[in-house]
Formats: sequence, C-alpha cells, structure tokens
Amino acid sequence: MRPSGRRVDQMRTVRITRNYTKHAEGSVLVEFGDTKVICTASVTRGVPRFLKGQGQGWVTAEYGMLPRATSTRNDREAARGKQGGRTLEIQRLIGRALRAAVDMKKLGENTINIDCDVIQADGGTRTASITGACVALVDALNFIRQDKSFGVKHDPLKQMVAAVSVGIYKDKAVLDLDYDEDSAAETDMNVIMTSNGGFVEVQGTAEGESYSRAQLNEMLELAEQGIKELCTLQRAALAG
Amino acid sequence: MRPSGRRVDQMRTVRITRNYTKHAEGSVLVEFGDTKVICTASVTRGVPRFLKGQGQGWVTAEYGMLPRATSTRNDREAARGKQGGRTLEIQRLIGRALRAAVDMKKLGENTINIDCDVIQADGGTRTASITGACVALVDALNFIRQDKSFGVKHDPLKQMVAAVSVGIYKDKAVLDLDYDEDSAAETDMNVIMTSNGGFVEVQGTAEGESYSRAQLNEMLELAEQGIKELCTLQRAALAG
Amino acid sequence: MRPSGRRVDQMRTVRITRNYTKHAEGSVLVEFGDTKVICTASVTRGVPRFLKGQGQGWVTAEYGMLPRATSTRNDREAARGKQGGRTLEIQRLIGRALRAAVDMKKLGENTINIDCDVIQADGGTRTASITGACVALVDALNFIRQDKSFGVKHDPLKQMVAAVSVGIYKDKAVLDLDYDEDSAAETDMNVIMTSNGGFVEVQGTAEGESYSRAQLNEMLELAEQGIKELCTLQRAALAG
Amino acid sequence: MRPSGRRVDQMRTVRITRNYTKHAEGSVLVEFGDTKVICTASVTRGVPRFLKGQGQGWVTAEYGMLPRATSTRNDREAARGKQGGRTLEIQRLIGRALRAAVDMKKLGENTINIDCDVIQADGGTRTASITGACVALVDALNFIRQDKSFGVKHDPLKQMVAAVSVGIYKDKAVLDLDYDEDSAAETDMNVIMTSNGGFVEVQGTAEGESYSRAQLNEMLELAEQGIKELCTLQRAALAG
Amino acid sequence: MRPSGRRVDQMRTVRITRNYTKHAEGSVLVEFGDTKVICTASVTRGVPRFLKGQGQGWVTAEYGMLPRATSTRNDREAARGKQGGRTLEIQRLIGRALRAAVDMKKLGENTINIDCDVIQADGGTRTASITGACVALVDALNFIRQDKSFGVKHDPLKQMVAAVSVGIYKDKAVLDLDYDEDSAAETDMNVIMTSNGGFVEVQGTAEGESYSRAQLNEMLELAEQGIKELCTLQRAALAG
Amino acid sequence: MRPSGRRVDQMRTVRITRNYTKHAEGSVLVEFGDTKVICTASVTRGVPRFLKGQGQGWVTAEYGMLPRATSTRNDREAARGKQGGRTLEIQRLIGRALRAAVDMKKLGENTINIDCDVIQADGGTRTASITGACVALVDALNFIRQDKSFGVKHDPLKQMVAAVSVGIYKDKAVLDLDYDEDSAAETDMNVIMTSNGGFVEVQGTAEGESYSRAQLNEMLELAEQGIKELCTLQRAALAG
Repeated sequence: MRPSGRRVDQMRTVRITRNYTKHAEGSVLVEFGDTKVICTASVTRGVPRFLKGQGQGWVTAEYGMLPRATSTRNDREAARGKQGGRTLEIQRLIGRALRAAVDMKKLGENTINIDCDVIQADGGTRTASITGACVALVDALNFIRQDKSFGVKHDPLKQMVAAVSVGIYKDKAVLDLDYDEDSAAETDMNVIMTSNGGFVEVQGTAEGESYSRAQLNEMLELAEQGIKELCTLQRAALAG
Repeated sequence: MRPSGRRVDQMRTVRITRNYTKHAEGSVLVEFGDTKVICTASVTRGVPRFLKGQGQGWVTAEYGMLPRATSTRNDREAARGKQGGRTLEIQRLIGRALRAAVDMKKLGENTINIDCDVIQADGGTRTASITGACVALVDALNFIRQDKSFGVKHDPLKQMVAAVSVGIYKDKAVLDLDYDEDSAAETDMNVIMTSNGGFVEVQGTAEGESYSRAQLNEMLELAEQGIKELCTLQRAALAG
Repeated sequence: MRPSGRRVDQMRTVRITRNYTKHAEGSVLVEFGDTKVICTASVTRGVPRFLKGQGQGWVTAEYGMLPRATSTRNDREAARGKQGGRTLEIQRLIGRALRAAVDMKKLGENTINIDCDVIQADGGTRTASITGACVALVDALNFIRQDKSFGVKHDPLKQMVAAVSVGIYKDKAVLDLDYDEDSAAETDMNVIMTSNGGFVEVQGTAEGESYSRAQLNEMLELAEQGIKELCTLQRAALAG
Repeated sequence: MRPSGRRVDQMRTVRITRNYTKHAEGSVLVEFGDTKVICTASVTRGVPRFLKGQGQGWVTAEYGMLPRATSTRNDREAARGKQGGRTLEIQRLIGRALRAAVDMKKLGENTINIDCDVIQADGGTRTASITGACVALVDALNFIRQDKSFGVKHDPLKQMVAAVSVGIYKDKAVLDLDYDEDSAAETDMNVIMTSNGGFVEVQGTAEGESYSRAQLNEMLELAEQGIKELCTLQRAALAG
Repeated sequence: MRPSGRRVDQMRTVRITRNYTKHAEGSVLVEFGDTKVICTASVTRGVPRFLKGQGQGWVTAEYGMLPRATSTRNDREAARGKQGGRTLEIQRLIGRALRAAVDMKKLGENTINIDCDVIQADGGTRTASITGACVALVDALNFIRQDKSFGVKHDPLKQMVAAVSVGIYKDKAVLDLDYDEDSAAETDMNVIMTSNGGFVEVQGTAEGESYSRAQLNEMLELAEQGIKELCTLQRAALAG
Repeated sequence: MRPSGRRVDQMRTVRITRNYTKHAEGSVLVEFGDTKVICTASVTRGVPRFLKGQGQGWVTAEYGMLPRATSTRNDREAARGKQGGRTLEIQRLIGRALRAAVDMKKLGENTINIDCDVIQADGGTRTASITGACVALVDALNFIRQDKSFGVKHDPLKQMVAAVSVGIYKDKAVLDLDYDEDSAAETDMNVIMTSNGGFVEVQGTAEGESYSRAQLNEMLELAEQGIKELCTLQRAALAG
C-alpha cells in the first residue's frame, strides 16, 4: 500500500554518522532513507544576555535547507533576506526538543548552538534533525566535560530525545512518512519523546479531513514504537 | 488550587461580540476572561498567484499584539522590522485551523484575510483568536453569499472550528489556562477541533518534565469538553 | 453642507475612556466620532542611550493601525517589514506634541512610551491620538509620582496638549474633518495647542489649490475653538 | 543679533546653477549660503501602477544627505538598510510641494523623479531642495515638451513653488535660519508657497516653548517676503 | 616550508564526485583537501525579466557556508537577514566565471542556477566552488540537451573553466593555499582560466606588503600549472 | 580608434580639488574626465569593537552613487533597503586599498571613514574614488597629527596609493576606459599600486573572450604608466 513498499509500521533505513565534518564539537550526518541532514553542535563559553548571571546554560537551534535539497529549487533564505515561517517554526521545535535533554544548571554558563542543515530532503526533515542533533549534542557535552576549563562537573545530559513522524495515509496510520506519503497524507503528526518514554512534543495536523481520537491513538502507538528503534540506533552510534 | 479559584475543568467567562468595528465584513471581539482579541475577516476578490485559475478560494490569517497588551511592553514588530517566530507560528496555526472550516471550491476565487489583534493578553491568545475568528469568518462568508457578484452559490462553511488550551499545572490536568497558570505549567497543549468533534490540530509541549500517555489523555478529555462549550457560545453569538 | 450634517464649527462627539486595558500605567480609548484609538502610556526606568547621565527623562511615541481599521484592508506593517512614511511621520508628530507637555528635568531618568493604535479609522486619527494620549500620559505621570522609587518629587506635567484637524472643504473652513470630508478637502491642517492657548505645531497642506492667508486665519480660529472644547473634555476625564 | 550678522529679514546668498550634472533632464545645484543641494529631475515614460490608465502623470521625490554633509558624520542610510523617519518626512514634503506646481493631466502618463541630495548642510536643506528642485522640474518639463514622442501638448507647469524657513530665535522672528540658529531656535517653521502667493504648506513646530498667534503672523510675513525673493531668483536662473 | 609539507607547486588532493545529491540536474561534491563544497546546477525554463525575448539563456550562482563549516561558528546569513559583502562578492565571481563557459545563444531561453554550499572550509572555497560547479553545469547542460522540449540543438558548452588560488607565503609563491597559509599569506591571488589556457579572471590582493611584477609572474605560472591539473580531473570526472 | 579620440596610453584629464566641502577633515572632488566623485575622510576617536585594546587604528570606506549619476536613473539604495553587490564589492576594494597606505600602529586607536560618492559617472568610478580618497586621507592624517589630543606622534602614512582601469578594447590594450569603452570592452582590469611601484590589487575580468598572458602584460604596463601620472597629480594637489 505504501509507495515505498514498506509495512505501515516500518521505518526507513536510518543511519547516524558521527564526526561528519571536522570543525564542530559534535557533527553528525543523519539519514532517514533519502532525507539527509548535517547536524552540528557548536560550543561557546557564556550565555545569551537574558540568562547572564543565573548560573545556567543554554541550547538553541537553527535549521536550513540547501536550495536544491528538494525536487524543485527553493529560493535561498539568506538571499531573500529572511527565514520563512516554516523554518522558524522548525528551528524553534528543534531547540525546545533538545533543551528537554539537558540539565541547564549542570551545563553552567555555556551555550550549545545546534545547526541542522538539510542537504537532501525526502520527508521528515524535522524529525531526522532532532534525532541526529541529539547525538551531536552528546558529543558536544562530552567535549565540554573533558575540557576542565568549562567547569562542568556532572553530566548535563538528562536523557536522549528522538523524533519521528506518523500520519494517516489512505486512511491508515503509517510510520515515518517519506515525501510521497507526506504530500498526500490526510494527517501529519510529529512526535518527540525521551528515551524514557515520556512525551516532549506532539504536533498533529489534519491537512484535509479532521481525525478521530481513535486515529490519534493509533498514530501515537506507531510513534512510540518508532522512537524506541531510533533510541537504539542513537545508542549504537554513540557506542561505536 | 488554581490561582483564579476555578475548577480544573472550568473555563473562564467567554464573550463573543459581533460587529465590533464597522469596516470589516466580519468583526468580532472575543474575550476569554481578561484575554481580549479583535478578529476581523476581510473579503477580497481574487486569490494569491499560486492559486490563480484553479477555481478555488483562500483563507489566510495574520496575528499581532498591541505593544502593551502584556504586563511589560513588547517592542512593536512593525518598528523592529519583522514579525517574530512566535507570531509567525501562531498566524500559521490560525490560518490552517480556519481553512479546515471552509470548502475552498465553494468559495470560488475569493480570498478572506483574517486579522487577530490582541488588545489585552492573559494567556490563551491563540485559542481565543481561532474561536473568535471563526465567527468573523462566518459573517464574511454570509456577506459573500448575499452579494451575488461574488458568484458563490453554496455555503462554503463546512463546519465551525474552535480551540482551547489545556495543560498540566501542579501535576493536574486543567482547562483553559490563564497567564499565571500558563507561565508555571509543566505542559501546555493547544487543541483545535471541529464542531463535529474531529481533531484539526493538537500541539502539546512539555515545558519542564515530559508527560505521560495518561496525562495526554486527560488533557484531551478536558479539551473536548471545553470545545463543546465554545461551540455552543459560537452558535449563540451567530444566532444573536 | 457637511456630509455628516454638522455645522462648520461643530466637532464630532468626543469620548475619552480611561483604564481601557489593564496592564498599562495609562490606558485610554479615545473616540472622535467613529475614529477610535487605544492610547497607552508605559513607564520604564532609565532613558535611551543618547540621554544617559543628563538627569532628564524621555517621552516617545509609536503609532499603528489595525489592518482593517479602514474601509479597505491595508497590509500589516509588521508583515511588510517596515513602517511606512506616513506612520513614521505621525508617530514623530505625536512624540513631539507630548514632549511639549512634560518637564523632562522633573521626570528624572525615566521613560514613557506612548502607543497609539487605531482600531477604527474615520479621519483625524493623529489628532485623536494626541488628545487621548495626553490623558494616558497624565495617568502614567501620576503613577510615577506615587511610586517613590522613581524619585520624582515635582509634577512633571507642564500643561495639557490637545489636537484637532481643520480644513477647507467645498471652499469653507470646517472643524474636525471626518474621512468623507478629509478625502475631498482642498486643504487639511492639523493644529496642536497647549491648554494655555499656545501653538505646539501647525501643519497645513494644500491638497489641490493653494490656500490664502485669510483661509489660513479662518482655519486657525476654528482650531483654537475646537481645542478649547477638547481641553475641557480632557479635564473632565481626568476628574472622573 | 544673528550669529551670521544678518538682519532678521535677510536671506543668505542664494545661488541656482542649472545643468550641474550632465545626465539628468533637469539638474540644478542650489545653494542657500553654505547649504548645497544637487537637485535632479529624471523623466520616465509611464506611471506607477496605482495611476495606470488614468491619463495623468506623476511627480515624486527622494531626499538624501551625503554621510559627511554635516559637522559630524551620519551613518549612510543605504548601509543601515533603511531611510530614517526624518528623510521620509522630508521627501514626502518635497514631493507634495512639487506636485502643486504641475498639472498632472497635461503631463500625460509620464513620471518625473526628483532627487535632492545634500552635499553640504548648514540649515534649511528641505527648503533649499524644494526651491532648487522646482527649477530642475521646469527643465525636465521643457525636455518633455520638446520631444514630441511624450505626447505633451500644453505646458504642464501651473506655477513655480519655492520654500523658505522662518523661526523664533532669541524671541525674534527671523528669516532663513542657518544651522547655528536652527539648533537654538524656539520655533522652526517651513513655508512653501506658489509664485502666485498661495500657501502650499505651512509646518511650524515649537521646539521649546509654544508660540503665540502673533508670532505665527510675524513668521508668515517674513516667509512671504523671502519667497518673493526666491521666485525672482528662480525666474532669473530659468531665463539665464 | 609549507605547514602541510607540500611542495610550493603541489596542489592538495582534489576529488570530484558527481551525482552527490539526487534532485538537482547537476550535483557535485568537490574536495580540495579538507575544503568540501556541494555544487548543484538547477535547470529552469525561461530567463530573468531583463533577458526576456532575446533568445538567449542565463547562468547565475549563489554561494553559502554552513555556519559551522569553519573553525568557529559564523552567524547564519539567513538569520542575520542578509548576505554579507564577502558572500555577494564570491557568488558574483562564480557566476561570471561560469558564464564564460557557456554560449548563451545556444542555451536558448533557459536558466541554470548554480548553488555552491561549503560544508567544510579549509581555504580556497571559491576556487573549489568554481571548479566543481563547472562539472555540475556540464551535467545540467547534458540534461537540457537530452530533453528535446528545451529546444537546445547545439551544445552550449564553449569550454570548461577551473580556478585555483596562489599566493606569496613566507616570501615564496605557492600553489593552492590551505587555511593556515591563507591566513598568513602576504598576497592572495585567485585565478580562473579556461581549459584552452585563456584567463577569465585574475584577482590578486596584497594583504600586507605590496607585491612586485616578478612575484605576480611567478604566481601566474603556478596557477597555469594548477589549472591544467584541475582540467584533467574535471575531464576524468565527466568521463567516469 | 577610441571613441574619445585618445591614444591607447592616454588618460582623461584628471583634476583633484581639495577642501571641496567644509565639514570633513579631508574632502576632495576627483574628476577623471566626466567621472566626478566626492571623497571625504572623517576622523573619529576609537576603533570598531573587533580592534579595541590592540593599540592600532582603522580605515574603512563606503561607496555610493547619486541615483542620477548615470545616464538612466538607478534606484536609490537607501530606498531599496540595501546596498547592492556591486556597491559592497567596490567599497570593500576601496577600503583594502587605502589600508595599504596607512601604518595602523602609528595611527593609534583612531578611525578614518572614507566616503566616496559619485555625483556623475562616466566609467572608472572605483579607480577615481581610490585616487581621490587617498588625498582626502592624507588631509585627515595631517589633521590628526596637528591635534595633539589624538596622540599620534609619527606620520601614519606609509605611501600613497592610486588606481586606474585598463582593458582590451577592440583587441587593443587601452588606458583609463570611459563608459563607452567600458561597456564594449572584452576585458576590464582595475589596478591599484603604491607610489613605490608595488601592486596592491589587480582585478582583471574577461567580459567576453578570455585574455592571454601577453594581453595581461600589455595591460599591466599601461596601468603602471597611468598610475605614475596619477601619483604626480596627487603630489601636486597635496603641495598646492
């Protein structure tokens, strides 16, 4: 039934490659099938002005897409002179998700900037970004812990977070939509969870018809299962 | 337990005043307690370029806050030279919600611009906006139907939509958070539903700790109840 | 002769409602007939950088219009990414007018931000804004005087200011033009005066034919009379 | 009494040099003492969109200052990314003034862009700009009349306009303020008149104390006299 | 003598990988040592307005760097709201260089957008971009030729172009500077040549002391040699 | 052969007028034939943030063109809201060139802002700007040396810089191209040199066909000769 031939509860092949570029403290290439995102975590001493002097750190995220990451070329946001509403919405989502992974007090007055740049898009770029960025974040936190001058004594990592999309496609709940499914889905839902099974964010939008409580439940179950798989892959990448 | 003394399942007093300003085809003042939003619906002939020639209409929304709608003054977005990420996110949400209420084919090549301007904020401005704007939208649709030159023969209204916030406050699920609760809540969830009981959008964000599936269910039940009350008030306002 | 049936020297009904919204230190709804403006005065400690350390305060103003305050919808300035020339011109005028009411030395290093937001426009929005904002300003000054921590010992209010438009309409000088008159007037003049009868600003523009010295004098006489009435209404509102 | 030693009713030396640069259809260097402005008038076929098909022309103006036209350097507006409020206000004033000189119907669907660029500032840049630009405008109108392809049969010039500043300086009304006077004046008034003696615009602002009706009259009389002198100089330049 | 241990006339290892991403008509990853750039060529029917109706095509380029492509994070240009001067300068250079490779008449009214996005920077990003983008351009031109609907009958490719940097480092002319050399070089020169040995662009800048004619000649000779090697690699990649 | 009748190695008449405007510390009108540029040098105490505390000065440049400096009017960059790529490229070039003339250590923590504003353009505006600005720079340096409060003891001027354009026009190398030649040239090269005969910058761009090494040499020889003449004129102006 699915264009890709996958089962309704089958994720695409997910790959997490650490140390993808050489400068960043954390650098991950994450692939959900043909969706490919470079996630870097950059460490800076100090915090933004609104947090100064409170003895806590900050994690924030930005998101971008190369102009030809998609099947037709999109205008470059830097050239248009502003980030679009979709971009701002996604980067705010990524930032909130990753802050759920970190104990800001333990991080001390240090900042981690996450950059998620999509080099090839095929649906699910925001969920792939969160899943990959969390691994880059862990590498950056380890970098901070090893350099004593940051003054971080206890691991600021509270738990991993991962994200997956689910949706109603041809009246069925399906897991991890690719672009073909996403553009035809009746409902699209992004779910972010912790490695402990708690919900960080649920965003479910009816594109056409509204969805029922029963459909909502079906989607949540697929998401819970998918995120468990992602957490396993994150752990494997960090162990590797 | 709640700062306002309300029961966990008790909404604030909601008022919907039609014909609030004189120029717009639909103009509503909506009040959820001390949250006050002017919602106008403006009718224009024609559609944006990306829809031209497809025989369908368009509904879009913008959102703003007066600088001193809040307890401390916020910079005016027009003076800062751009709308913030929060504003863009909210107006995209309002637009999607209202499009779920309208059959675009029946609307023909006409556009309705919704403006939601918060003149006083006390939590829940986006859900109040959607609830009030849907009433303004109905007035605008009726305006279009009465003026034969728009060429609209069948009522484009599919169903009403309304929205309410729920959350986890001091470990309890509560309905319709005011600012005091909102700023202290562990989880904040906005729910948009149709008058038929279908979900249009669910957005639930853990601000501190993640939330469980059981808590998610509790919040959804409160939301379903609150939205039923709002739909009754919308119908009364339109009948009035 | 006038579309509204008013005499040439007759103002529209003017209403000044204090405490219109709850957060601002001064908050006024001013109505000149169907023109309705929310004027708030917001108090902040400190002054802009160019005044630091000079022991004096600052009063500044911003102006906006809801997109559908007018008979056809105007683009939202925040969405267009800048304030238009007309907006900047009006808010500079309001700021200058209100600074004429205040002794900056007595205000100390405190700032008052005035926001004038037009929720319904029918001509004369800038003169209504000034007249209403001056009342909000007095409330803000009283707030500052009552809170000893601002260190203001003597009333910074020098005098009230009020403003009215006059013009040449169908060859006659008329007072307080509404939109129908304004859009057809040969000359449009805005006059701002103090409660002591001094001129703060006179701006008279020929839209079509130029005007004579005699016409200028006629307009000024109407303005002087109108402003006297406005000052009486301001006093009554502040006493109320 | 005046820093320059001038009588209260004495203008600075005014020079109007035509054909100052070679590309523009009208190009004037205007000098009011040390204030020097290059005024060009550029002719284009067609009109802005809002006037299309109405068989009339358009005149519009832009104003700028070289960064070091003043005693301390101002940021370049092009580098800051926007024109300031003062600039917008001045160029709107110049545009309105020059449109009063032209019969738009006779101009046909042609546009004249006026550029006033201050290369050295010493007070009165906006009044010098208007006075010089009107001469450049006449040259551009003559260019249009001589090239039959513009289809302009009757002279679109209705009358010349000129402008001068007056003010209250050390309690006396004075004519044509230079920078030293302008920065210390209690009241500053710009007056624009036609060569027939009609008023196009009067803008009088109290910088410190308000001004009386008697002072207003004194200033207007000085302005009327100064503008007569300027009209004589404009005629001489055009005859030369 | 060189930090990398290379001879003065030795280039870094250069790799050109075609079909790097799947959506673009031409997509190349080019590597000059640790400098890695994704170059895509996107085909669109039609040309920009200034070329319409002239029966010729257009090639244009944009350039960007991921925020953490460098050793410290740079602000994202899309977030800052504009492309910096360096970026604009580089993308203008790339566009000019690639237009030298194409016969615009033969291309017909079609446009090719080149995007060069640096994912890892180690000196020479602009010369790597040009060298890689020319290969992506050839793939896009072949795409156009194979799809008859573009109406391109004759190969629009006139010749290949390639680019390399040379400089004066520790008083010696060196080829293909990496970041360590670039940041310490006295002179930095970028040379763009055709595969026929003609110069397309030479840009040589003294960072510290000026350079002599003899040094200029030495640098040019190294550049000519390096570009010959690059042309061989381009040919091999296109044959592969 | 040249449209102007000049020999291939003949420059236009060059004039350098010092003290052109009265406010700036250095102010020069430079004319290369009909190309006329006002170059001012403005002195400020202190340096930009990135240089603070390093005991050295800074020289930076901005470039602009009056909208009607050219044969057809260009949009005003301040009105469009940003400086174009060509403008940024030119002002970066001017800044680099002038910094080559100054010993930043000797300048101390002082900044010189160069403004080059083209009031009439006829080709070669960037080379005229550099040549004239260097004279204004010397006047500003002398101003700084004479005012002891700047603390500059030794002349910060290392050497003069001057610039000229050369090109291949109708297959011949020519010196100092005017607009007619520039717009038809096959190759356009800007050369900046010190008064000691060293190269500061060489930028040679093939507009049509690529150029050979022999042509490059011919152009460089013409440039060396032209710059010698310009240095003589600069010295004469400074002596005058």
